[in-house]
Amino acid sequence: MMDTQLTIDTLLVRAENYFAKKQVISKTSTGVTRYTYADFAKRTRALASVLEHLGVERGDKVGTFAWNDHRHLEAYFAIPSMGAVLHTINIRLSTDHLKYIINDAQDKILLIDQGLLPIIESIKEDLPHVKAYIVFSDEEHLPTTNLQPVYHYEKLLETGNEQHVFPDNLKENEPAGMCYTSATTGNPKGVLYTHRSIVLHSMMLGLADTMSLSESDIAMHVVPMFHVNAWGFPFASVWFGTTQVLPGPNFNFKTLGDLIETERVTITAGVPTIWIGLLNELNTNTYDLSSLRSIVCGGSALPKGILRAYKEKYNIPFIHAYGMTETSPVATVSRLKSYQEGLDYEEKLDFISKQGIPVPGIEIKVINEQGEVLNNGKEMGEVLVRGPWITDSYYNQPEKTAEAVKDGWLYTGDIATVDSEGTIKIVDRTKDLIKSGGEWISSVDLENALMAHEAISEAAVISVPHEKWQERPVAFIVKSKTSNANVTKEELLDFLALQFAKWWLPDDFIFIDEIPKTSVGKFLKMKLREDYKSYTMSESL
Amino acid sequence: MMDTQLTIDTLLVRAENYFAKKQVISKTSTGVTRYTYADFAKRTRALASVLEHLGVERGDKVGTFAWNDHRHLEAYFAIPSMGAVLHTINIRLSTDHLKYIINDAQDKILLIDQGLLPIIESIKEDLPHVKAYIVFSDEEHLPTTNLQPVYHYEKLLETGNEQHVFPDNLKENEPAGMCYTSATTGNPKGVLYTHRSIVLHSMMLGLADTMSLSESDIAMHVVPMFHVNAWGFPFASVWFGTTQVLPGPNFNFKTLGDLIETERVTITAGVPTIWIGLLNELNTNTYDLSSLRSIVCGGSALPKGILRAYKEKYNIPFIHAYGMTETSPVATVSRLKSYQEGLDYEEKLDFISKQGIPVPGIEIKVINEQGEVLNNGKEMGEVLVRGPWITDSYYNQPEKTAEAVKDGWLYTGDIATVDSEGTIKIVDRTKDLIKSGGEWISSVDLENALMAHEAISEAAVISVPHEKWQERPVAFIVKSKTSNANVTKEELLDFLALQFAKWWLPDDFIFIDEIPKTSVGKFLKMKLREDYKSYTMSESL
Repeated sequence: MMDTQLTIDTLLVRAENYFAKKQVISKTSTGVTRYTYADFAKRTRALASVLEHLGVERGDKVGTFAWNDHRHLEAYFAIPSMGAVLHTINIRLSTDHLKYIINDAQDKILLIDQGLLPIIESIKEDLPHVKAYIVFSDEEHLPTTNLQPVYHYEKLLETGNEQHVFPDNLKENEPAGMCYTSATTGNPKGVLYTHRSIVLHSMMLGLADTMSLSESDIAMHVVPMFHVNAWGFPFASVWFGTTQVLPGPNFNFKTLGDLIETERVTITAGVPTIWIGLLNELNTNTYDLSSLRSIVCGGSALPKGILRAYKEKYNIPFIHAYGMTETSPVATVSRLKSYQEGLDYEEKLDFISKQGIPVPGIEIKVINEQGEVLNNGKEMGEVLVRGPWITDSYYNQPEKTAEAVKDGWLYTGDIATVDSEGTIKIVDRTKDLIKSGGEWISSVDLENALMAHEAISEAAVISVPHEKWQERPVAFIVKSKTSNANVTKEELLDFLALQFAKWWLPDDFIFIDEIPKTSVGKFLKMKLREDYKSYTMSESL
Repeated sequence: MMDTQLTIDTLLVRAENYFAKKQVISKTSTGVTRYTYADFAKRTRALASVLEHLGVERGDKVGTFAWNDHRHLEAYFAIPSMGAVLHTINIRLSTDHLKYIINDAQDKILLIDQGLLPIIESIKEDLPHVKAYIVFSDEEHLPTTNLQPVYHYEKLLETGNEQHVFPDNLKENEPAGMCYTSATTGNPKGVLYTHRSIVLHSMMLGLADTMSLSESDIAMHVVPMFHVNAWGFPFASVWFGTTQVLPGPNFNFKTLGDLIETERVTITAGVPTIWIGLLNELNTNTYDLSSLRSIVCGGSALPKGILRAYKEKYNIPFIHAYGMTETSPVATVSRLKSYQEGLDYEEKLDFISKQGIPVPGIEIKVINEQGEVLNNGKEMGEVLVRGPWITDSYYNQPEKTAEAVKDGWLYTGDIATVDSEGTIKIVDRTKDLIKSGGEWISSVDLENALMAHEAISEAAVISVPHEKWQERPVAFIVKSKTSNANVTKEELLDFLALQFAKWWLPDDFIFIDEIPKTSVGKFLKMKLREDYKSYTMSESL
């Protein structure tokens, strides 16, 4: 068979040749930009040519510091197609972490959204490797900036070659992309994606049993493009000729509702926080969501109440997926098997709210502390993953690599059960598990149960030290703003007692205004643990 | 990223772990065998263990000479998973060709359907490399045979190890399968498939925009498993947990109708001859085809009349695909783009009857004799293909390889036009084109037009030598048995004159009982050309 390489430039060429008329719709700070894949390909080739002119060479890292828009999409294809490495930088990181990762990656050039310039300006003295700054701008002229040398993206593109030819000797195992995990402790860890990993992951997104992404879809990318390649959707969408909707900078839930309605979005993806927020927005304003065939959800546990609300009120099914930066990210998808269609409605919701089975190409096993493979639906163990889009290392971090990758498997740090269908259900992060009297309690199970309560908007459960039981659960509750119920600790105890063994029930319920979150919207339980480390158990319970 | 290899054993493991309850339904000479993927996996592992015991080593070729059934499916996975090469032998070849390919491949063991034993017995003296014969049998005891040593498959399996472990060091570029083209001239040419090519091709079959093969499908493999791996469906079906229906030996159209109805088949694939035959059967007997969501069709041009009949009478859409032994086989699929949904019905039928655009992973260009890439929808040129499941050589045939593979492209010998959407339309084989007065006439276009005539069942057009025009078309016509119309040459001329320029019209129409066909059901025009090489043009036209 031919030694044809799985490289990202071939994805672009397919869109160019067969989907030239299909559109990219991009919200910018000044309006909406619409153009065709023919235009997209020309601008992408022009970008590659100017980057080459600025000195970007094979293997160089080029950073992007930007929201989801068409210019970012151009960078997604120009940089890897020329043999350089697309380093998408999380715009929500602390300046310390930003300095760390830009220097760790040795980004040669940074592409920056104009609105995000002040952040980069504030750290520019500490970025010795950066040779040039290019500003994604919707304005005619750049604002005054002390970055040097600095270029206006659009003016630079005018000097580029729309027929620029990519190298024909790219190998699929060359690095193509890079993303750092949003670390809750220590420095972020870099993951290098290859052409091969991105192309195979893209193909997987088109499978009927995963996302079924198709030419006929209109896909809105809500997951930030600085976060694990927006879960891979931009790459797959170009390859399949899918219409793309990019919600631009600082979008809010109204923007999302408007875009779904006006652009007739058929599929979109994001973390549960987004869909909880959109649901609240839908309580206030009305949008026509009838075009939506699926919402892809992942990143953290999907509360069953959310599944139910979208299904019952709007007839929109969720596709629940599981993964992380290290897994490109999609490793499992939760879909009913054909013989499960006969289950009753509640059983189906329960099933879909699990994380599902490995997608084709990925292998998973869940092992207990003795290394035994689990599948009895009850015992909890750590999730191990392997496959061609799973990382085998952290960039420049041999020690952290050795901790996470053993015997060819990635140890995810996620704790799960596996039922007889092979379905995994993530019950916690290793570090979030509560070990009470030698038995494990899943903080995630308690949180999901609490968030299904109509008076509760968010809930986080952490362990606090306990003299007798070593650790005990404590719940943090954010009350719903739309509900009138003024729920009490006692009511919540009774509520949970219907579903859990007595020893699982939290020792206390603490009402707060907001759960602290990470830069990608996940609960930052570490912060809660830190704030409440000297907490003394309430006497009232 | 992990250096995980794309190997066939991982497909089997996924079915074992996640689809253990799903079924394989196999028609045999004595009834119907039904078992689960759990059983399938055990028997497959047992088969690998007994083959190992019989001396099969890494890289050895193991031949299969069989119809589509569960035992053949077990061989599909056992042989490559143990590192050997699955050589599927076309049961319809001449004994000369059989001897040639079994010796060319150096098959070490042959797995043979009991009903096909006499063929192998008749050539056994000329098979010096074969060390053992294993008979796929539905009977308790084998018939008397002079093959030596010979084993009863089921009895052999009983001695095998159902927990046999496959080697963990298989590389994706190792050979996994082998198929010879059904040559119309000279000896058949061997194509070696690799684990990588088969796995990537399998993933492609699951894409929403190709076959959309899914766990929820019930796929019936009508394409012989000795013909380009039944177009790859058995491999993909196991991977995705798809229910499989295997129609067994000597199936007829009644069998197909019965199986579709009773097993609730959702997707099936085959050459036009099959669907024309089934359509005739449907005129006689009634079957419930309501479960069928798609018929995949390829192998030769799909007459628009067939598309129309299935759509209008049974509401079954066709997925039209293009490929060949050298392309694993699927290289293009014809699907309407979303913005073509507005076309009128006839335009849609026209569009779908073209060969479509390259599937993700495959690149195609059509070039004229000057090497220019075509896309004007009119000019005809040769189709060139490349990609990870396209062959780069013929086995043991450096000269034929050099003819067919140049500059990294496979020269298919097929002649096509390309429209502005990038859609290719195969108009002929290089050797079947008719060059009249320096201009090309497509025999396939004329044939399709003729076969759309209600009084015609089959039509083949060939070129005959002509003093003035070098070559002129002559049409061979098989009249329909179900139509009462007794069509004449003059009527056919008038009929074609509505659609074609005058100089395209055949110089003669010859009515025959049957078009000679190749072993895989394609028109054998070479035979017509040979039979009519001294033909003198009729005076009557």
